[in-house]
This record gives sequence, structure tokens and C-alpha cells, in this order.
Amino acid sequence: MKRINKRALIAFLSMWFIVTTAWAQQVSRPNIIFFLVDDLGWNDLSLPISGNVTANNKKYHTPHIEQLAKEGIVFTDAYTAPVCTPTRVSLITGVNAARHHVTNWTSPQKDRYTDAADEQFDPPEWNINGFSPEPGIAKTFVGTPLPAVLRDHGYFTIHVGKAHWGPRGTPSSSPNNVGFIVNIAGHAAGHPQSYLPEEEYGNIPGKGSFQSVPDLEPYYQTDVFLTDALTREALKAIEYPVSRKQPFFLNLGHYAVHTPIMGDKKYLQKYLDAGLDSVEARYASLVEGVDKSVGDILAYLKQKNIEKNTVFIFTSDNGGLSLAPPRGGESFTHNLPLRVGKGSVYEGGIRVPLIVKYDGVVKQGTVSKNYVIAEDIFPTLLEIAGIRNAKVIQKVDGKSFVPSLRNAAVTDTNRVLIWHYPNKWRNPDGPGINYHSALRKDNWKLVYNQRTGERYLYDLRQDIGETTDVSGKYPAVAKSLSALLGQTLAEYNALMPVDKKTGRQLAYPE
Amino acid sequence: MKRINKRALIAFLSMWFIVTTAWAQQVSRPNIIFFLVDDLGWNDLSLPISGNVTANNKKYHTPHIEQLAKEGIVFTDAYTAPVCTPTRVSLITGVNAARHHVTNWTSPQKDRYTDAADEQFDPPEWNINGFSPEPGIAKTFVGTPLPAVLRDHGYFTIHVGKAHWGPRGTPSSSPNNVGFIVNIAGHAAGHPQSYLPEEEYGNIPGKGSFQSVPDLEPYYQTDVFLTDALTREALKAIEYPVSRKQPFFLNLGHYAVHTPIMGDKKYLQKYLDAGLDSVEARYASLVEGVDKSVGDILAYLKQKNIEKNTVFIFTSDNGGLSLAPPRGGESFTHNLPLRVGKGSVYEGGIRVPLIVKYDGVVKQGTVSKNYVIAEDIFPTLLEIAGIRNAKVIQKVDGKSFVPSLRNAAVTDTNRVLIWHYPNKWRNPDGPGINYHSALRKDNWKLVYNQRTGERYLYDLRQDIGETTDVSGKYPAVAKSLSALLGQTLAEYNALMPVDKKTGRQLAYPE
Repeated sequence: MKRINKRALIAFLSMWFIVTTAWAQQVSRPNIIFFLVDDLGWNDLSLPISGNVTANNKKYHTPHIEQLAKEGIVFTDAYTAPVCTPTRVSLITGVNAARHHVTNWTSPQKDRYTDAADEQFDPPEWNINGFSPEPGIAKTFVGTPLPAVLRDHGYFTIHVGKAHWGPRGTPSSSPNNVGFIVNIAGHAAGHPQSYLPEEEYGNIPGKGSFQSVPDLEPYYQTDVFLTDALTREALKAIEYPVSRKQPFFLNLGHYAVHTPIMGDKKYLQKYLDAGLDSVEARYASLVEGVDKSVGDILAYLKQKNIEKNTVFIFTSDNGGLSLAPPRGGESFTHNLPLRVGKGSVYEGGIRVPLIVKYDGVVKQGTVSKNYVIAEDIFPTLLEIAGIRNAKVIQKVDGKSFVPSLRNAAVTDTNRVLIWHYPNKWRNPDGPGINYHSALRKDNWKLVYNQRTGERYLYDLRQDIGETTDVSGKYPAVAKSLSALLGQTLAEYNALMPVDKKTGRQLAYPE
Repeated sequence: MKRINKRALIAFLSMWFIVTTAWAQQVSRPNIIFFLVDDLGWNDLSLPISGNVTANNKKYHTPHIEQLAKEGIVFTDAYTAPVCTPTRVSLITGVNAARHHVTNWTSPQKDRYTDAADEQFDPPEWNINGFSPEPGIAKTFVGTPLPAVLRDHGYFTIHVGKAHWGPRGTPSSSPNNVGFIVNIAGHAAGHPQSYLPEEEYGNIPGKGSFQSVPDLEPYYQTDVFLTDALTREALKAIEYPVSRKQPFFLNLGHYAVHTPIMGDKKYLQKYLDAGLDSVEARYASLVEGVDKSVGDILAYLKQKNIEKNTVFIFTSDNGGLSLAPPRGGESFTHNLPLRVGKGSVYEGGIRVPLIVKYDGVVKQGTVSKNYVIAEDIFPTLLEIAGIRNAKVIQKVDGKSFVPSLRNAAVTDTNRVLIWHYPNKWRNPDGPGINYHSALRKDNWKLVYNQRTGERYLYDLRQDIGETTDVSGKYPAVAKSLSALLGQTLAEYNALMPVDKKTGRQLAYPE
């Protein structure tokens, strides 16, 4: 062999080595499990997420989530939209609801407004058909969905459980159209008809509904509660990428703990014995079922020895439901010390648990007081996946919170978060429920009532329960934040309720 | 750099090159599309599969299937079991129904016999719960399913459409448990509730049934007929492995042309104009919908430039339905010149179209007269995929027909095929329907009536229509084939109907 050939050979083979090992490195990026609970309140856990043990913390039993917190970081001030589809669209697009215009939950049926009737307002032309990955579908927000980006960068993407990105008859009613290679049990519906295998999760012939949960036939007439069935399916589905050492993104959207509040008999008696009323005991059993799911997944990751290379994110899609009925007890008490619950722009409706386990990056057992919001998940997961310069057609409002993962002390007190709900969730209005906007900056929280034009200012550092309006005490702050809210809504091209008298949208707050 | 280092470097890098290119070669194995039509009769095509144009051939319009035949090989003598689940289990296990004991179609509900009541017989304890990939499920045949083997050897496995390997409440009611990474629209049911998007394929709330087709919500209330929806989903699903250059196995099980015989309005008028009665016109429109699916897939393969590296296998799961009603016209005429149809061990019930396009291996436009059967698909696909020594727990009865693909002249006239149906499909009995077995060797076909012990011999070379029993003319042949049938059934540990008087299974034929 001549010297020149050897050199060429070495050059060629070295290039080959570089290319193939670069490819191998690419596929050793961390797995990501996004574990999304439905309607789980901020302190519906035995974990004292605020640092102080609350009455709620004493009601629930979630040892695996406590363990997760010990091994990860807890965000005390994590937010979502006040209802589910807006949050779910924000999660996969990185866009705030005020901009994506899917401001309310979507019907399982196409072209249907879900707003309750109102004497004063008509709903604005919000995107009642939800999210769409492709243009040309009327009344949808069109964007590049996170799972598709992850898939196109080498991740094996799996959706299991509740989807709820858009109605039947539109692309996003199938998670396969949102970038998921595998979909099990996700569709247009926002809740399950039944959690019970004896009711076939709502698939008994002639008794089905829009909420019949698809794809779980093997569990019919067994003793497997819906939450457990989804966990099993999730673990089976990740088996494939795990066996190939391909990084995976598992989007596990539990139907729990949304209504119908059905008891999981494995856990129910304990809560009845503890004195909870029958509804709240059932609710607590749903919560513990979710905890079991966390435990089962963490055990699987250990068993497969991929625990250290798997980022686990635990969160909820909005605050806990606080209407009674369907909850037990008294309305608007279920998230105390937070005010109100699902549907409201008060903290009870928008503040959620967020726990991230990320070995090697997150310092175990830490707490972040940085305030973050659902749309941050998009850039955060892209950063975790090492994806830069992804082709994304929408303007992303979210901000990666990876710096807070690396160092729990990192916060951004200049950041402005807004919530915007120009819709009517229910009749009658409740505190912060229907036609409200809100803004948070540092520890100030401004609540704006679109119906009345009233504004309220709270100092969350002193008053996490938003009990005392301090706008009289700090008029300059209230005025400046109100203007900031108006400017931000204008910048987002936010929709406002339509005044029935004039036929025109309301003006933004000043 | 020292000489020794250079040598070591070259050695190391060369090894790397070999390993990685070997891996790359592994993933360049051919894609496989197994296109399975439901209840499509042997000559329900405009393609004259027998070589002679039949009356049926003139009724139907299937230009893309004609084209497929021009580009591939047509098997004139391809067989299945007389009803669907037995065939479908044979396809994924390589085992004959007489051995796997799933001798009849399975109910969507667990632990249910589907046999019609009979005065003389009780059904034997056949595997009413179908196939199972895992032990411990009562009344199932346990085996290693073909898709799992393909998946474990690098294939990306996709199921779209009808599955029907076992009832709700058992593992195989989800194709994900049968080795498919992706499942769209497959479950326990053996037919669709509806082909119509306006009927949401049977998913209108309150109107669902065991046959509500899952996973197709994006098409509800559009103009996409079920067959087209499945085709679209199949093409979307293969996009992922195609983009990664990973070989794929697509198991496209069309619900068409099974009952309910609903018209596809894109094609219907043409058949009415041609004088077909309304049922038969609808049936022909279902057939043309399947042809369109073939055409769409072939066009996609061309467009993606993977046509030459994709093996396309077109076939049916049993003979054409020949009961009227639900078919139009007169019973037992629909597969002429073949006798009877679905449910019968006469040729009309078991002989099906089989066309294989395999560029570079199959000589275009050829015809094989080798007689082959559903269980041959298992070893054939393993050979095509280059998989040797796969770990398979069941004894495989099938035989690879790759030699016939390589050379259309290769036949095996010593081979013995058997059919065994110790069940009652319907009331009343029909020719070859209920409690029958059959055997083919060379061009001899023996039909055995379990109820009466009668045997009939046909010479298929002279008499494809099985009109003339020649057992009197060739008593030695009849005797020898009858003994061979009995021996084979004994070897397979086949089940026989249970005589109600004695409570014991019938003896095998002698």
C-alpha cells in the first residue's frame, strides 16, 4: 500500500468515524417523559409544594410524587391557562392562549362554540377547532407542533391518554397528525366516559359517547382501572425505542383526575376511613392512582437502567376543579390556600404542580421560585433535546426554563406572564371565572374583569390567596400593570368578548 | 505518526467501517406491504386470474390490480381457510387452522362460541379467544407472531385496518400486542359498522357497536370513504420509516369488501348503469375502492422512489361471500366458475387472489400454478426479510414460496394442503359449509363431510368447479387421500365436532 493511499484511507475512515459517532451521540440524547395530569390542583398532593403543609396535603397520599420531588426540582410558581385545551395547545406550540386564540376548551364536534350563553357578550371568533398542524382548516391555530420537531430530530414520539387538541373531523383529533408516531387512547375528547374496565371505558355498544376512550380493548372486563391501563400502554410503547436505544418522547396525558369522579377501589376505603365525603374520597383515589403511575414509571426506568438518562416532567393542565358539585364540599375551597380553581384566573385556576427530575442537571430536592408557564415547555424541551434552530412557523412566546433547572436560584422577576379568557366557561360567573384577564410580574398579580372593567392588584409574596386587593394602596403599580396588560394583549392580537349592544369587541384594558 | 499507529488506526477504522456499513445494509432490506382484502373472491377482479376471462371479471373494474399483475406474479391456486380469523391467525403464525384450533371466526366478546346451534353436534373446544402472543389466556393459540419477529429484526411494523385476531379483553384485540409498533383502526371486530364518514364509521354517540371502527376521527363528517381513510393513514404511517430509510412492514387489512355492503358513491353509478342489481353494484364499488387503494399506494411508492425496494403482496382472507342476501343475485353463484363461497371448503370458499410484486426477483407478468396457502406467508416474509433462525415457539406448517417468486415454473405437486372446519358457520348447511374438511394434493381435491362421513373427489385440472365427484372412478385415490387427510388431522391434533349423543369428538376420517 502506498503512503498516499494510506493517508487517503485514514482520511476517509476518520471522516466515517466522525459522521457515525456524531450520529450515535445524537441518538444518546435524554429521553423525555411529559407526565400531564388533567385538572390536578396545585396542592392536591401529599407533597407540600409550597413548602408549608396545607390541609390539602394532609388529605392526599402521593408517596411516589414526593419521591420524585426529592430526586428533582419543584417549581412553586408554575402556571397554565385556566382550562385545558388552551394549555394543551400552548404546550405543543409554545404560544400563549391570548395569541393562539384557542382560548376555551374545544368541543368534540367541529365548528361548535363551547361558551355558555350570556346576556352581555357574544364570544369572539376564537379558534373553536383548536390546533392544526396544517393550514386550511377553518378556525384553527396553525403551528409546528413540538412532537413533530422532536420526531424530525430523532426522537421516537409516543402519545398515550388524553389529547384534546381539536374536534372530530379535524387533523388534531388524531395525535398521529400532531407529530406522534404512536398514539394510544388520544382523540378529540376532553375527558373519559368512564374509568372502569367493567364499563369498557365507555365503549359498551349502544352506550358510547364522544368520550368513549379508544384503543384499550385488551383491558375490557378486567380489573384494570383506566389510569393503570394507560400506564401499562405507555410502558409497553417505550419498550421499542428503549430496545433500540433511540431517545423517546412520551407524552402521557392521564385522563385522571378529570370528572367523572369515579373511585379507584384499590385506594378508596382509606379515604372514606379518613373521613372524606364520598366524592372527595373518590377524587383522592384518582389522585393516588396517578401517583401509582408515577411510581410504576420510575420503577420501570430503574429496571431498564435508563433512569439517569430520562427527564421526567410532572405537571397538570390547569388548576383543580372547585365547583361543588361535581366536587364534594363547598365550591371554591378545593385549592386553598389558593383562591378558586379551574376556570378562574385566580391562582387556584392557573397555578399547578411542576416537578422535573433531570439527573446530572437538576440538583436533587431543590425548589425554584421562578414563575413559569405552559408555553415554556416547548422551548424547554427543545433545549433539553439539544435542538437548535428548529423550523417552527409560529412565534414562540415561551421561554426555556433550563437555566432554572441548572441552578434553582435563577429567576427572572422582570418577566411578564399573562392569562386571557374572553369566554364564558359557566353560568353564573364566579371569582375570576368568565371574561377575565390577568398578569403577573415579579410578585404582583393584576386581575382584570372584562365584564366590568374592574381591576384588582395582589401582592403574591404577602398574599398567595389573593384575598386583599392592594390597587388602592399601590395605584401606580395597578395603573402601570394594567397598561402593560393592555399592551401585551394588543401585541398578541388577543380577542376580546363581543358586546351584544354594539356588535364590537371590547377595547383592551388601558 | 508512527507506522504502527497508522496500521492500528487503519485496522480500527476499517473495523468501524465494516460494522457500520453492515448495519446500514441490514436496514436496506426490502419493505413489505401485505395488502389483505376481506372476503374478496378469487375472481372479483377485472384481472382474469385464471387466465380465462370469467363473467365476474367482466363485472368488476380493477385497473390498478391489473397493473400490479403485469408488474408481478399471479398465483392461480392460492388458498386460505374458509372464514377469516382462522386465516388471519395462520398468516401471523404460519400454522394451519387444524393445528392452531382457531377454526372459526372469533366473537368480539371473550369466551363466546360463534357456532350456530346444531341438533347433531356440539362444537369442539376450539380456541374461541383467538391468537395470543402470551401464555395464560384461556382458549387461545399461543405463538410468536410474524410482526414481532419482523420488528425484532429491524422492521418498522405498522398495522392499519381490520385485525380480528381475538376478542375484547384479550391481548390480541390490540395489534400493538401482536408485534405492531403502530396500530390504526385494528381491534377485535371482524367488520366495520359503517364505511361512511357521515356515520363516523359507526362511532356516532349512542349508536356504536362492537364494530365501531376506532382511530379515524379526523375523517368524521368529511367525504372520505373508509377504504380511502385507511389508505391515507397507511401512507402517513409509512412516512416515518421511509424518511429514516428503515425497512417497514405494512399490514394493511382493508375492512372492504366485507358486509355491510355499502356503496362507494364515487363508483356506484357506473355499476348500476351496467345493469348490476343494487347490492351487486354496491359490492362492485367496494371492490373498485380497494383497487383505488392499490393504485394510491403504488403511486406513493413511485413518488418516494421506493417502488423497487418494496414487495407488494395482494390477497384476501377467504373466498367471496356467496349468500344472498346479503349478496344480490342467487346464493352460491358469486364465485363461478368456482363452487360456493365463503364458509365452504369448496374452491369458492378457500381460493383467493394472490399477486406479488417483487422487483428484481419476480419476473414481471408471470403466473404461478404452485398451490400455496395462508400459512405460507409467515416463512415467505421471513425469507424475503432475510431472517434466518428466528426464535419462533410454534411449529410452522407453512412453506416459503420464495422459490416460486424467483422462478414461476417451480411447483411442488407432492405437497399436501388441508382445510378443516369442525364448526357450524350458519343454518342451514350448504355445499361444503359446516363440518367439513378437505385436502389437496397435486390436482386432486378431496372433500370430506364430517356430518355424514361422505367423501368426494375432484380433479381440479379438469374440473375447477368441482361439479363431478370422481371418487367412484378413482377409488384408490379417494381412499388414499382420505387416509392422508385422517393422518394429517391426527398429526395436527385437529379437533372434531362433538357428537351430542356420545359427548365425544368424532373420529378422524380413515
